[in-house]
Amino acid sequence: MANSAWIYDISLTPPSLDDNTADADRLLAALRSRFDGALVHADIALIRTLPEQLRRWEWKARCLVFPVRGRRDLVAVFDPDGTSTVAGLAVDLGTTRVVLRLVDLASGGELAESAFDNPQLAIGPDILARIHHADRPGGLDDLKGLIINGLNREIAALCGRAGIEPGSIYLVSAAGNTAMTHLFLGLSPHRIIREPYIPAVNRPPVLDTASIGLDVNPGGRVLIFPNIGSYFGGDLIAGILHSGIHRGEETAILVDVGTNAEVVMGNRNWLIACAGAAGPALEGGVTKMGMAAGHGVIDRVAVDADTGQFEIRTIGGLPPKGICGSGLIDLAAQLFLAGMVDVRGKFVASRCKDRLFTQDGLAHLTVVDAERSATGEALTLSQANLDSLTRSKAAMYTILETLAMTVGVSLKDLSAFYVGGTFGSFIRPESAVAIGMLPDIGLDRYIPLGNSSLNGAAQILTSAEAFEELDRIRDRITYLELNVNQDFMNRFSAAKFYPHTDPDRFPSVSPR
Amino acid sequence: MANSAWIYDISLTPPSLDDNTADADRLLAALRSRFDGALVHADIALIRTLPEQLRRWEWKARCLVFPVRGRRDLVAVFDPDGTSTVAGLAVDLGTTRVVLRLVDLASGGELAESAFDNPQLAIGPDILARIHHADRPGGLDDLKGLIINGLNREIAALCGRAGIEPGSIYLVSAAGNTAMTHLFLGLSPHRIIREPYIPAVNRPPVLDTASIGLDVNPGGRVLIFPNIGSYFGGDLIAGILHSGIHRGEETAILVDVGTNAEVVMGNRNWLIACAGAAGPALEGGVTKMGMAAGHGVIDRVAVDADTGQFEIRTIGGLPPKGICGSGLIDLAAQLFLAGMVDVRGKFVASRCKDRLFTQDGLAHLTVVDAERSATGEALTLSQANLDSLTRSKAAMYTILETLAMTVGVSLKDLSAFYVGGTFGSFIRPESAVAIGMLPDIGLDRYIPLGNSSLNGAAQILTSAEAFEELDRIRDRITYLELNVNQDFMNRFSAAKFYPHTDPDRFPSVSPR
Repeated sequence: MANSAWIYDISLTPPSLDDNTADADRLLAALRSRFDGALVHADIALIRTLPEQLRRWEWKARCLVFPVRGRRDLVAVFDPDGTSTVAGLAVDLGTTRVVLRLVDLASGGELAESAFDNPQLAIGPDILARIHHADRPGGLDDLKGLIINGLNREIAALCGRAGIEPGSIYLVSAAGNTAMTHLFLGLSPHRIIREPYIPAVNRPPVLDTASIGLDVNPGGRVLIFPNIGSYFGGDLIAGILHSGIHRGEETAILVDVGTNAEVVMGNRNWLIACAGAAGPALEGGVTKMGMAAGHGVIDRVAVDADTGQFEIRTIGGLPPKGICGSGLIDLAAQLFLAGMVDVRGKFVASRCKDRLFTQDGLAHLTVVDAERSATGEALTLSQANLDSLTRSKAAMYTILETLAMTVGVSLKDLSAFYVGGTFGSFIRPESAVAIGMLPDIGLDRYIPLGNSSLNGAAQILTSAEAFEELDRIRDRITYLELNVNQDFMNRFSAAKFYPHTDPDRFPSVSPR
Repeated sequence: MANSAWIYDISLTPPSLDDNTADADRLLAALRSRFDGALVHADIALIRTLPEQLRRWEWKARCLVFPVRGRRDLVAVFDPDGTSTVAGLAVDLGTTRVVLRLVDLASGGELAESAFDNPQLAIGPDILARIHHADRPGGLDDLKGLIINGLNREIAALCGRAGIEPGSIYLVSAAGNTAMTHLFLGLSPHRIIREPYIPAVNRPPVLDTASIGLDVNPGGRVLIFPNIGSYFGGDLIAGILHSGIHRGEETAILVDVGTNAEVVMGNRNWLIACAGAAGPALEGGVTKMGMAAGHGVIDRVAVDADTGQFEIRTIGGLPPKGICGSGLIDLAAQLFLAGMVDVRGKFVASRCKDRLFTQDGLAHLTVVDAERSATGEALTLSQANLDSLTRSKAAMYTILETLAMTVGVSLKDLSAFYVGGTFGSFIRPESAVAIGMLPDIGLDRYIPLGNSSLNGAAQILTSAEAFEELDRIRDRITYLELNVNQDFMNRFSAAKFYPHTDPDRFPSVSPR
């Protein structure tokens, strides 16, 4: 087996009367010389079994060594001629969905992947409700218990499918937003949402798996991605790592959109980040029919400008039961391009025709009629829903514009525009550009990152370079606090138009 | 409170919107700048309570920071205006007796001291029996449990006397021989007594108090003194530290005598060590009346050469019930000086007169008659007992001579002769010189170290310099394997005479 990122095959000179160095010190010294003198630590539990193992393996050992700040930890030793899997687990600690990927640490190959709904949803669908719950007596323990127990159940199932024991998992790498990370670690998230928004920790220590309660190998280690602040979490650091913008010659941008829009711009020389409230519109939280992506949820809409016919696509091809954020953007873009929504983001009655009706004094658009919907009720979009999306898209664009202005870069000069998160996997850039949410820079520059949080977390398990970049990325990022001043508000107002007050910025967008 | 060895008062700039570093990272960065950039680690459990504490203490904290290889650990934080005691515990992990000293980490002052019999004595009085017991199923756990539980009982009692909670103990420093250290850590001592005599570990990692099962503060740390090999333990490293021979301009020697004689010679530039079997004579294991020092045990003997009268002193002034190692040396020296033992170490019948009798074909000397003894039986010394002591004293002298020869130093040139261990506290150097056990270098150069193992362990708790010297001492020691070759045996034979075949080496000794 070739040495992979954290696995080293070591051969020792056997001890003798003339060379009576102890077993543990002998192995640690050999590893140390392998790491240019870096200190290597071994837990006493590992030292307990080492003398017998080294003799059985005839003074050879396959060592799993993971870097911990200031030193390296010898996490486990194995028979160099053995065939048992040494596994790592990457975790995307999402507020809504938690995704796991089991990795073979020796080959770097993926063994299995699975996802489950974050069990904390039972306490509160959004992170704010959970943060408040954590303040109640026992609330923080509840939340920590829910995520840890949920992970343990899923780990057992995932290992079953991969045909390995959970005890074969020696490294866990987890990325999540700052609040989720705090809840996972049993740290109070109380101050994350209160001025001046100070997390308990930016760089959590590397933990023993046992101390956090994960049912994997008890001698293993857990790395939690560091955060930059309360609103810029480890999931974004993982996203940067995965995108590679921190290594690029040319300036690129990474956007992750949820309740918050988190943005990083930069290249190999600098990285600047900011985050701002984008509103809940994009997480399916504002429309009556809004929901997270899932089976039966509308993710694509095409509107025929001539006939006014809607072509609806749902995930899994099932009858539609609601719409997700990217579907909503698609819908808004198509309505605008078909002339059914005007530059102010208002329904155009003459074009919407009988799809438009008034209820409680508010204009509503029928997207799917009751007969075709999975719920038996019509799926509709109200003017208030659309206004909410308009504010979200304006906020997103204003954040991008402000960041670019601050560093003196034109959005048009960006070499790549990475769109992260689940949102990034589903969004159609042309639709986001059509409504003026994302800049009109050419569709080929838009690159969906997939689950960048999971991908970044998985990289740490198999790449020493990625690990080394982790703290470097964190330390290099300049965090820009967005001041919602008059300038910002002026730009925001201009961005509430479709696609923008200044249509020259969106040459490719030509509404009917 | 002035900053002591491991306690630092830190004042922080409070966070703000412009300075949103997390609480833990803020404190660790301030500590790091205090330590010239050395990495400082904090456990997640400490980080959990930190945000509330820092705000309550208005961004000030008293920090207990202990060095761990490659980094420093923030072990605990305290209210800087608080008055609670922050304690450390020094432990001498003796094979027979375990001694504890409670220390105030802030002032360095001693709070209380106590000792108890090593509960492993129930398994076996000597370490060899315990090492064999450790090979049995569950044997190692038995032994570890006995010492840990014994310590926990004694810690509770000691803290009760000092008026503090065991939870106030944050640092534990323990020194013992290599086998005791292994049993304390739950490491198999199996190979310590088997060629090529390889310990499981030379430098045990600094442990969490909780992981070793000590009932002190669960977030605390335990430092175990490193060893040089199976027969040169952490107790000796502690002894060197306490003696200061590693800092001296002139060459000095340190001797610790038990079943093994352990010797270190050196100065600020070099240290050389060796160990050899001295036989059980000096631990009270060979004479019928031999026993460890304690109440009613003979520790001094004076023989009037003219009258043949014995003057006997016991510990506590009680009727005599036995004799300890140092009492035995006193007795042998007095018998030799009074002409009752000849240069070959044999009883002289004409001078011993009616104290001498024959039993089972072997000459015996009555030391205390039945009427005066605490046991109702006469306390006697047989020729076989005396021969055993002769071999022990010859082995001791030969080891010293061999070591001195090897490094080309004359024993007469030694600036100081430190005698460590319990033995060192009781031995009368003039008696040891009289029988030729220790060299005739002037009584003023003999310095008893008291419990050097405990004193060395305690130094680590209150002195950063001592801590830094620990690894330096260990790394500088050259261990000399004593080859029991013909030369050694020749020197040994010459040393079996009283005081020596070459009486010129002992000018101050003038027997009758």
